[in-house]
Formats: sequence, structure tokens, C-alpha cells
Amino acid sequence: MRLAELCAATGVPSATVKYYLREGLLPAGEWVSARRAEYGPEHVERLRLIRALVDGAQLSIDGVRRIVEAIEHPPPSQHDFFGVAQQAINGPPPQVEVAEETLAALRRLGWSGCEPLALAHLQAALDTAARAGFAVTGERLMAYGQALRDVARYDLDALMADPAVQTPSGALRHVAVGTVVTDPVLVALRRLAQEQESERRFAAASVADAGRDT
Amino acid sequence: MRLAELCAATGVPSATVKYYLREGLLPAGEWVSARRAEYGPEHVERLRLIRALVDGAQLSIDGVRRIVEAIEHPPPSQHDFFGVAQQAINGPPPQVEVAEETLAALRRLGWSGCEPLALAHLQAALDTAARAGFAVTGERLMAYGQALRDVARYDLDALMADPAVQTPSGALRHVAVGTVVTDPVLVALRRLAQEQESERRFAAASVADAGRDT
Repeated sequence: MRLAELCAATGVPSATVKYYLREGLLPAGEWVSARRAEYGPEHVERLRLIRALVDGAQLSIDGVRRIVEAIEHPPPSQHDFFGVAQQAINGPPPQVEVAEETLAALRRLGWSGCEPLALAHLQAALDTAARAGFAVTGERLMAYGQALRDVARYDLDALMADPAVQTPSGALRHVAVGTVVTDPVLVALRRLAQEQESERRFAAASVADAGRDT
Repeated sequence: MRLAELCAATGVPSATVKYYLREGLLPAGEWVSARRAEYGPEHVERLRLIRALVDGAQLSIDGVRRIVEAIEHPPPSQHDFFGVAQQAINGPPPQVEVAEETLAALRRLGWSGCEPLALAHLQAALDTAARAGFAVTGERLMAYGQALRDVARYDLDALMADPAVQTPSGALRHVAVGTVVTDPVLVALRRLAQEQESERRFAAASVADAGRDT
């Protein structure tokens, strides 16, 4: 298909498509004449992926580039693989010093030898919360860690069961894209869970209060 | 303290402080002369909160405004309270139609009568994931929901135990700010948990493979 058709198929304006081509996020089309390139279904798929990462997961262009490059050049072994996916989704390390209290809480979760990049991002998030006047205690960190371990276990079970994971590129796409695009799902579920739990507790309390009045 | 001292105490440039004053995010100082306003510790605290919400939790100015307004005008009853906190942290509803499959998964979690705003945000996140080629199954949604229910239960237990929650403003601050600034903590913990779990599984598999070779 031509550029105009690619734009029509994906709803992405041509100036934006050209920008992604220049930035190397979208592979070049096949030049069929000096002035016309042909694009295929892989371009449609890539454009949808880029838009979902930019609009949905709110990734920067650098974040999208890291994920696209990781998918195009997956590491050969499953061992390096998670490191590459982590780097693609985590971005550059923030300049922080990991607090002993953080490490202590992680050790109590049985987590040792943590990946320094992921650890730096955790500490940066904790520092931000503290600056907002909301100190995250070691106990809270452990409670959250246990819940997110359940999420990670489900993620890995589903990863191993997915037939697309047979290829390194498919597996990396599953981990990197799957993680980034489901982060907002977790956040949205937390809101719903808070509301359901508070409804359960406070509505029950109101009924008990009302009963007491009569 | 003067404006210059407020800037020095918080590290926020004076042009930015003036912008927050104009936008009403920061209450005006007390005018002690025609050209000089005095600021107090409440301004330092508010500025730290704004910066943490903007830089750390990546909130828009509108998002910050919703939280600040909710803290300044908390609802009188605990019942309205979570609705106000939800609106402050969720933002305007996305234009989506909630899928029957989503509602079915939530019902299987025992969640009914879900807050429409939080539900719309969940569906928007699911739609984004699907556009990125990553369809979230009902089974995955349930697994995530169970984990986030554990998080919400911890959050509510901690809320009830916090002495700052005695005032409506303190409680709203705890819920709205506490939720927004700990979202990135959950996301960072998920990365660490993935890496710990994959290490546990694949490292164990490598050792077993090595054993088989000898």
C-alpha cells in the first residue's frame, strides 16, 4: 500500500508517519519507483504498536525506540532476555542511592541480587512519595511486593503458555510490550479495588450505625 | 519568609512559583507591604507536594489542581469521600464503551456496582493494550484484580490506622496523594518481581540442564 493508504488504515497523519520513519521507529517501505514506496501489513502493525505505546502507555519516543530495538534485535538466550526487556521498559537509571531500609524490605520478601536498574527506579519512586509527604514504610513495601509477586507469577505462567513465545522476538514483544501496556490496567484495577473495599467497609458500617439508631 | 526564601527552601524557580500562584495551586502569601508577601511552612509543604505530583507521579496541572482542591474542600462524610478521591486521581472519563467481558471478569471477582469513572479508565487501558496487540484475557484480569485487591486491603487498613486521618482533609490527602504517589512504586515492584521470578525459574532450568549434560 502507499503512504496515504497506510495513514488511512491506521489513522496516523502522514507527517507523524514520516517522523517515525526518520526516527527509525518504523522500517522504511520498499521503493517501487523514485517517488513511491510500498508499505505492508508489518507497517500497519508497527504503527499500531507505536501509537499504543505513545498514547496509551504514555511512553516517550526514546522509550518506544528501546522497545522497538529490543524486539528487532532480541538476545539469543532466555537469560539475557529479561535484562534486555527490563532495560527497554525501565529507561535510563535515575540518580539515586538505594536506602538500606528498601533493601531490608526486599530481603524479607526473599528478593536478593536485584537488578540495579529496576532497584534504582523503585528507590526513585519511594523518594518521590516521601517528598510528597507520604513515606512508604517497609511493611507497606512488603505488602505491595507480595501482591506484585502474584502478578509476576501470573505473567510468567502466561508467557510460557503463549505460542508466540517460540521466537525470541515474539517473547520479547510479549514481555516488554505486555508489561508496559498492562501497567495502566493494574493502576485502574487498584482504583476499582479501593472503591469496592471502601464500599464494603463503610457501607457495612453505615448499616450497623443505622441499626443502632432504631 | 519572602518569595526568594521560599524558592531557596524548595528549589523551585520563582517563575514556576508565580505560575502556581496564578493557577491557584498555591495559596497567596500574606501581603505585608504593597510589594512584599510573606510565605509560611504551609507554602513549603504545598510546593513539595505539587513538585512530587508533577515530577514524580507525572500528573498534569489539571490533575494536581483536582487533588489540591479535594484536599482544601474535603467532603463531610466518609461515604462521598472515596468518590471525591477517585475523581481527583482519575481525571475526566475517557470515551469508551465498557465491554461485557470486562464486567463479567469483575463480577467473578465479586465486584459489582463499579464506579463508572474508574471502570471507564480500566476499559480504556484494556483497549490500549489490545491496540498494541496484547489482548488482556478475562483470566488475566481476574488474576491482576485479586492481587490489586490485596493492595487495596492493605491501603485501607493503613488508612484507618493513620492518626492524620482524623481530619477529612488529612484523610483525603492520605487517599488521593498516597494512591497517586505509590502507583509508580507498584510499577517498579512489578519489574523487580518479574526479574526475581524469571531468575528463579530460568536459573533453576539452566542448573538442571547443566546437570543433565555431565
